[in-house]
Amino acid sequence: MVQVANTSPTLDEQKNELKTRIRKLNSKAGQMKMDLHDIAEGLPADLEKLPEAATKTYDIFCQLQDLRQQLKVLENS
Amino acid sequence: MVQVANTSPTLDEQKNELKTRIRKLNSKAGQMKMDLHDIAEGLPADLEKLPEAATKTYDIFCQLQDLRQQLKVLENS
Repeated sequence: MVQVANTSPTLDEQKNELKTRIRKLNSKAGQMKMDLHDIAEGLPADLEKLPEAATKTYDIFCQLQDLRQQLKVLENS
Repeated sequence: MVQVANTSPTLDEQKNELKTRIRKLNSKAGQMKMDLHDIAEGLPADLEKLPEAATKTYDIFCQLQDLRQQLKVLENS
């Protein structure tokens, strides 16, 4: 296989980059999930924190699903 | 004290009505808080239920705070 300088990332590089992003996001998502869990448990204390915590948790899990889907596509290609 | 027919509710009646509403709402709020707690715990399963559950839980606790405030005002009047 001919290697050309300054090519776009290889498939393996793309996969590894995705895996790294997923790993980081997954750890963040786990933390947010626990925070939301604690807020729910402690209601009505911290009620004002609930909307933002729920929105952020939802968004990060959606993003995570999306990245996992992208990885799946790369792994099947 | 002179009793007149068709008067507006007495202070005691207003307080009792508020207390009943608060009791019912409190029980509902407790249930929603537990549901939200379970959703958070089980993420990413049921992710699609999170936004609505969080919004409803937030709204009901806000309503509860409002009714409790109204009762406080009545009790100090």
